[in-house]
Amino acid sequence: MAAAFSCPVFLPSTFSYNGNRYHGRIKIKINATSSTKVKTLNEIAGAGKGSSSLATSTEIGHLSQEQIRQRIPTRKQLVDPYRQGLIIERGVGYRQTVVVRSYEVGPYKTATLESLLNLFQETALNHVWMSGLLSNGFGATHGMVRNNLIWVVSRMQVQVDHYPIWGEVLEIDTWVGASGKNGMRRDWLIRSQATGITYARATSTWVMMNEKTRRLSKMPEEVRDEISPWFIDKRAINEDVPEKIVKLDDNARYVNSDLKPKRSDLDMNHHVNNVKYVRWMLETIPDKFLESHQLSGIVLEYRRECGSSDRVQSLCQPDEDETLTNGVEQSLLKNMILTPGIMEGNGYLGPLDVKSYGYTHLLQIKGDSKNEEIVRGRTRWRKKLSTLPYSS
Amino acid sequence: MAAAFSCPVFLPSTFSYNGNRYHGRIKIKINATSSTKVKTLNEIAGAGKGSSSLATSTEIGHLSQEQIRQRIPTRKQLVDPYRQGLIIERGVGYRQTVVVRSYEVGPYKTATLESLLNLFQETALNHVWMSGLLSNGFGATHGMVRNNLIWVVSRMQVQVDHYPIWGEVLEIDTWVGASGKNGMRRDWLIRSQATGITYARATSTWVMMNEKTRRLSKMPEEVRDEISPWFIDKRAINEDVPEKIVKLDDNARYVNSDLKPKRSDLDMNHHVNNVKYVRWMLETIPDKFLESHQLSGIVLEYRRECGSSDRVQSLCQPDEDETLTNGVEQSLLKNMILTPGIMEGNGYLGPLDVKSYGYTHLLQIKGDSKNEEIVRGRTRWRKKLSTLPYSS
Repeated sequence: MAAAFSCPVFLPSTFSYNGNRYHGRIKIKINATSSTKVKTLNEIAGAGKGSSSLATSTEIGHLSQEQIRQRIPTRKQLVDPYRQGLIIERGVGYRQTVVVRSYEVGPYKTATLESLLNLFQETALNHVWMSGLLSNGFGATHGMVRNNLIWVVSRMQVQVDHYPIWGEVLEIDTWVGASGKNGMRRDWLIRSQATGITYARATSTWVMMNEKTRRLSKMPEEVRDEISPWFIDKRAINEDVPEKIVKLDDNARYVNSDLKPKRSDLDMNHHVNNVKYVRWMLETIPDKFLESHQLSGIVLEYRRECGSSDRVQSLCQPDEDETLTNGVEQSLLKNMILTPGIMEGNGYLGPLDVKSYGYTHLLQIKGDSKNEEIVRGRTRWRKKLSTLPYSS
Repeated sequence: MAAAFSCPVFLPSTFSYNGNRYHGRIKIKINATSSTKVKTLNEIAGAGKGSSSLATSTEIGHLSQEQIRQRIPTRKQLVDPYRQGLIIERGVGYRQTVVVRSYEVGPYKTATLESLLNLFQETALNHVWMSGLLSNGFGATHGMVRNNLIWVVSRMQVQVDHYPIWGEVLEIDTWVGASGKNGMRRDWLIRSQATGITYARATSTWVMMNEKTRRLSKMPEEVRDEISPWFIDKRAINEDVPEKIVKLDDNARYVNSDLKPKRSDLDMNHHVNNVKYVRWMLETIPDKFLESHQLSGIVLEYRRECGSSDRVQSLCQPDEDETLTNGVEQSLLKNMILTPGIMEGNGYLGPLDVKSYGYTHLLQIKGDSKNEEIVRGRTRWRKKLSTLPYSS
């Protein structure tokens, strides 16, 4: 597949990309040290090649500005040079090459879980972007927008075998599949570009919510017709029946109350982004444990969205007996065993480090009469090896 | 300059890049649905072409892993396909093309100030990365590492004329210059790739700190010899003498106490990253003001680093008289006036919106006997226009 195209980045100004009505760069000489007149965005809106029909109307000035600035494809793209993305898997999967950025890593130079989740979100959206189905929402297709629908995540599972390090080049594959009658599954694989080794895998389930009523919705036929041609029957994580996550109560060992969503926690769907929940969950685990352990897996079951005015409580409970007891843990461990090379004392996971530690989590909104669940979670941890210079 | 190279992204597996001793991708067949044995990172460390000398020693296994995974250039690079970066300005400036990612924008789809600051940091580091001077620290050169020195920022000034929107392609230019005897200036320009319009400009001053004593240091000759060939005498922001920022005291109008650095706030230099300070500052401004205003400029004067155990207090004070009085504001306004097109009622800044609002800020560590300043700041704001669908 990679041989099917070439030369996609640093486009000459005459480059035009497939299926997009706005072609090429509008050439304006820019010189930071001179006082050359800079065109305004509205002037530009009327200057793009192929957009002359837009230029005559000032009424749609804002719309056309946004279109020119975003350039959301209206037809399927096979490659996006700026996103370093390409369509794979016989035309329906998506692969993006990314570099781990300096602000995506923690003090020990390894990518944070939050950064991985952000990259999952980003590649998922870019997959929809490439499909030509993207309306101007947060991954919503044209059919979804016609029905006032947005995507909400109902479940997310991530397994991390190795944490990418600062400056490392990654390939992230993502694809979608059916999930019941009204849902969609989305999976990801993160690989080292240099070695091809799989670092992390993830699977998630998505359903549709009415943007106005904030209630879950069936998948309309027109939306199914849009997305089902993209479904692949392939799984990043082979799990048996997902185990139930126990609901914690006020007896939980660690409780962090009065968490307040910040303006920067809200996303384009005007609620707290699901990635932020993970931060609240992990912050509730004692520092001492976090300093000596590394997250190897997480399962999240989302129950309710969280708005900017909600006050959130985060509870967590370490497993009483730190042997492996329930199905979720078994499933996480099994996956580790399936890749025996990783466990051969190579500095990543020696035989003595197989022991893993589990936490159960709950985020809830504190109400006057009752609390409302936002998300339940399970995390699995392994001991950090102090010999590893970039463990985190 | 852009015509000087081609085909840099989606490298075939035989691609090798200049000056890097680790060439090409090590081909390993990966199939997520099969149980193909996956090579471990240590096995890979001995398998790369050109790294056979490393393969014989297990003692340096970790080092070679990290080298293979990061591929920090040991010689100057003119182009980096993964970072979409290239050297410009007669061989000493750096330009990177980036796409505004979904998690870098707020609810109204515009990039947050924090995202812009993160991109400044990222492009600065990639500039050093391309120079061949980067040691394995946070932008530290080989000479700095030999002297146990790290970079710390002492001043940062940012002006934002337009906020980039989700999915927009940007070109970020950055370059360095002299600043006194022991400092370095670093500037940035953010432009729309589609139109060439400048969205934001920034300038900063950096000094060196001893990593162990945490005291500021003179610039050693060997470091000056490394970096001074990269200096350019060009400024992104033409400012007169920078005005002093008043130090706030307990009488400040808004005070947010007991802010606690989180694990995720620490960077590779093991202190709170300067970008996080801005979040604390802005969170202290009342929501009501933030909802109706947009930041147009910020000046930060850093005084002291902040560690993970410090308890921080954020103070801010709106200007009494909201006319423009001091030099910093004058300078910010002047820049707006220099680009008159932006003010011609095109939906960005009409004549009625020239009025700007100022806040003075202080972050300090609450001590038992006395408080210690971390950073002083000034922010400038303009009214948001409700007609703008993607204002934030």
